[in-house]
This record gives sequence, structure tokens and C-alpha cells, in this order.
Amino acid sequence: MKKVVAGVDIGGTNTVFGLVDENGKVLSHGTFKTTDYPKVENFVTTLASEIKKLLAAKKEYELAGIGIGAPDANYHRGTIEHAPNLAWKGIVPLADLIKKKINVPVAVTNDANAAAMGEMIFGGAKKMKDFIVLTLGTGLGSGIVIDGKMVYGHTGFAGELGHMTVVPNGRECGCGRKGCLETYASATGLVKTVIQLMSEMRDESPLRDIPPSKLTSKKIAEAAANNDPVAVRAMNETAAILGFGIINAIVFSSPEAIFLFGGLAQAGDLLFKPVRAYLKKNNYVLMKDTVKILPSEISESNGAVLGSAALIWNDLKN
Amino acid sequence: MKKVVAGVDIGGTNTVFGLVDENGKVLSHGTFKTTDYPKVENFVTTLASEIKKLLAAKKEYELAGIGIGAPDANYHRGTIEHAPNLAWKGIVPLADLIKKKINVPVAVTNDANAAAMGEMIFGGAKKMKDFIVLTLGTGLGSGIVIDGKMVYGHTGFAGELGHMTVVPNGRECGCGRKGCLETYASATGLVKTVIQLMSEMRDESPLRDIPPSKLTSKKIAEAAANNDPVAVRAMNETAAILGFGIINAIVFSSPEAIFLFGGLAQAGDLLFKPVRAYLKKNNYVLMKDTVKILPSEISESNGAVLGSAALIWNDLKN
Repeated sequence: MKKVVAGVDIGGTNTVFGLVDENGKVLSHGTFKTTDYPKVENFVTTLASEIKKLLAAKKEYELAGIGIGAPDANYHRGTIEHAPNLAWKGIVPLADLIKKKINVPVAVTNDANAAAMGEMIFGGAKKMKDFIVLTLGTGLGSGIVIDGKMVYGHTGFAGELGHMTVVPNGRECGCGRKGCLETYASATGLVKTVIQLMSEMRDESPLRDIPPSKLTSKKIAEAAANNDPVAVRAMNETAAILGFGIINAIVFSSPEAIFLFGGLAQAGDLLFKPVRAYLKKNNYVLMKDTVKILPSEISESNGAVLGSAALIWNDLKN
Repeated sequence: MKKVVAGVDIGGTNTVFGLVDENGKVLSHGTFKTTDYPKVENFVTTLASEIKKLLAAKKEYELAGIGIGAPDANYHRGTIEHAPNLAWKGIVPLADLIKKKINVPVAVTNDANAAAMGEMIFGGAKKMKDFIVLTLGTGLGSGIVIDGKMVYGHTGFAGELGHMTVVPNGRECGCGRKGCLETYASATGLVKTVIQLMSEMRDESPLRDIPPSKLTSKKIAEAAANNDPVAVRAMNETAAILGFGIINAIVFSSPEAIFLFGGLAQAGDLLFKPVRAYLKKNNYVLMKDTVKILPSEISESNGAVLGSAALIWNDLKN
């Protein structure tokens, strides 16, 4: 028999799942629309039958557990709680519902924690005990590992670095507050900064010919690569505010590395160089030059499935 | 035989030490001037002989270890490193030097981590796994416990919340940067805020009759208790910026409680009430109403010795 773990990533639109072996190989995978299931019970029925289909493909597969990444997930309780981007309202006992269909260990956490677990078990943090993964997408998610263990905190919701306030009375955040890090240091935040700079700067820029609603971090990174002054300045300001937030996290837990993952991190050196320069100049003296800023070694394409599966592989390996 | 632990607190001026039993009772104690020992070797000789004197008082005492709180101490390495407030320059291998004189386990950490350990082993955090202690004195120190373990981080220097930047380009900090939390939310920070407010406000205040160099957080708290408008506003502004910093720590680790210790915390309700009100209004939605703001249950007078001893008692009890 060959032990496999099912990794499941529940997104607002799509649910992606796959079987993952102990080396981090995705053996098979599938996807269906989360939005097709306004009732979570029906979602769970489909998910369970899809996982069973993958298992049936090879006789030697033995399912060791199911790891799930989902928005507003609570690791301690195995629940999804009041997720604004899902149809399932209130507190959803997801782990329990799944266990009734497939009786194996089930672990649930948010996608950023899953990404950090993926980095630790299968990626660039294999030999690290203290590190943080920042997922820079629509928002800014974070997974924090201290002394080899994921930080879940008293509530199970720890690791919300996207909601550190970095600009008092700054940009409006979806959480109802203002100036949260994710309103600046995320793919969406970069777009907002470009829009703001277009109002402040006089320079010509091809970005001015794109409707703001169609602007993306990818287009901005491409413009920055072509030395567009608005895009370059937006990149540098985004990097500086990300660096500012990172230093406030460093004085807390003194990690060995910060891994950047997600859409904005795809900008590569355009982002990493100014972040590293900011840290070199501004980091707190006791932690100066002690923290590496690294790209994630988990690929974007199967990262979510891998990270979710790593939740269970981590338990099996310890 | 009765197991005892020596707790030692090395300050810039005085060194305090004592023998502590497993219930957190300080059985005997002493003190000498740190400044009398420009050479650390001589300091260690005196410390060892003083501890031996305390042990000699009762035949049944058996020394189980020595716990030490000291500025700029590195737990991983057992060192004091580049401490600006001590005469011993460079990297001082304190734990090794002491072990050569008394061969028992020796643990070294900074005073705020020691305070947190004291709170966990002997104080209000006995049943908690996730909490933070903030020491609000000349500076702001912090000891962070996550899942029952002290956070030391990759460098051994983790837990420097006093150096979170809360006001970009704000007050000058001793660390060489600007706007660190401790320049606002500490006994010293409160004094600075009063001085600033005296320049901004027109209200009369008895605090205007005190030379700024003689102002203390105690005098300000007394004035606030008498409804002095400058002192009251300074208290509220200090509480708000402390609350701001606390929320940025909460989104990181989602603790069950924050304990406030030290000179500024002595202001009691004058500080605690507005801090709690700030959190009630501004805390991140997933952590709202999940964090208690509590006074430390360790007394100021023997807290340093108790906390240092707790470093060893924690190891013995696990």
C-alpha cells in the first residue's frame, strides 16, 4: 500500500483537490465549482465522492487523511466561520461533516497557513524552524511557524498580518478598519498605489490608458520592467510598506526567513530588491541582516493542494 | 533535600538575586552593585559566592539551577550581547562563565521574557498557553508565549515589541530608529507625551511647575487621578497608542491575554480602562473580544528574581 493524503483548497469560486504523496508529488487532481453548492452538505457529498474516485484509480492507494485550506477556517475547531466569500453562513463544522463521509483525520486551516505548511514540508523551509510565509494576492495572508510549529493562537485564527495597521487612517479595508497592510502590500494594493500615483505624478505612462478596473499587478510589473516611472515608483512604495510590515513582524518572532508567495511576488526582483534594501536600511539592530527574504519554492499551480496536504503530512511525519 | 532555584536579575545599576522554591516563594535574597564590576569575570565570582552564601544558610537546600534576566541576553547562546547599559562590551558568555563556578543548569534571557515566564509559572498566566507580557518601564519590553512556549526566534532575541514602529518618522528611539512603540507606551513615553501636550494645550496644570527632567509617570498618574486635563489626555493618548500596538501583536499571535507590568501599569484603571476601550472599538474582527487586558499578578518588588528563577522551574516542571 502507498500512503496518500488528499489536499483540498476551497476558494470562493473553485474547489481544487488532489492526492499527494509523502514527497510532495501531486499524483492526481480535479476541480469543481464551489458556487454550485449553496448548501455545504451537498458540497461535502461531492467532495467525498470525488476523492473516492481518485483513490479508486489505483488499488495501492491508502488515504491517510484530508487536509483543507479554506477562507476563515479555524484549525482548533475544524470549522469555517462567517466566511464573507462563501455561500455557507455562520459556523460550518466542515471537518466533522467530512469525517462522516470518509473516516480519516481531517485538518482545516486558512490558505496562508496551508501555504506555510507546504513550504515547511515540501518547499524552501524544509530545514527551518522559524519562518513566515506571506501570500500576496487579492489580500495579504500569512502563515507563521515558530520553533517548528504553526501558530494558531488562542482563537485558532492567528497569523493575520494582512490586518496589521500600517497607515493610521489609511485606505479602507474589507475588514471594516483602515490602513491595514493588505490594502497596500498585495496585488490589489499595488493597483491602488498606481491609481493614487497617477493622480500625483505628471509623468506619462501607458498605465493611464488602462481603465482602473482592468489594471493588474502583472501589467504593472511589466510596465515597471520597461522602466515606466509610475510603475517603478509604485513597486518601490509597495516594497517599502511591505518591508515596514515585515520589520514589525520580525521584532515579534525573529524569523530566519520570510517567503513571498502569490501574484505580487511574481514581480520577482522588481519587488524583492527594494524589500531587501528597505530591510538592510531599517531593520531593528538586534535582527539586522538575520532575515532572508525569499521567493516561495512551492509552485503557484499546485501550491494550494500541496499546502493543504502538508497539514496532514506534517502530523504523520511527527 | 529541598530543591531551590537561584533567580538573578542583572540591571544596569544593581544586581538582585534570591533563592526561589517551586511554589514561587522567595526564600532569601540579596543585592550588589553591577557597576562595581567593570570586568564580568569578577562579577561572576561575586555572584557565585553570594549564591553559595544563601545556600549555606540551610543544609537542606539543593540548587537545581540558576536563571538569569539581563539586558540584551540571548537565550540560545547563554550570552549578553553588546548591552549598551552594561560595562561588559561585546559578546559575554555569561552562562558558561557561571557554570565554571557552579555546575548546574544556567539559563539566560532578557528581563521581559523572564517576567513572562514568572507570569506563566507563578502568576496570572498559570493556565494559559498563549499570552504576552508587556513591561512598561523606562522602555517597553515584551515576553511572548505561544502554545505554552516562550518565543525566542531564530536569533534568540525575539519579542521586541517595544521596537515595532507605530509612528512613521515619530519620536527618536534609543535603537537609532524613529517612532518605536516604547517611545510612546512606557513610563518614559508618557512623560514625553505630557511635555508635548503642554506645548499644544492651553489648560493650566500643576505639571507645568515641575521641570521636565523631574517628571515621572507616577506624578502624571497622580495628576490624572485628580482630573488634571493634561495628565488625563496624556494617559488616554498613551493608552490608545499602546492599544494600537497591542492589536498589531494580536493579529500576529491571537493571545488569550496581555499582561501589563511595570511602572506605567501602576496607573491602574487610568491606563487599563482606555486600553480596553480602544481594543473594544478597534480590534480586528476575528479577534474581537477574545483578548483580556490584565494587570500582572507578579509583584514589582520580587518579580525580577521570581521571573528569572521561573526559567529553570519551567524546565524542571516539563
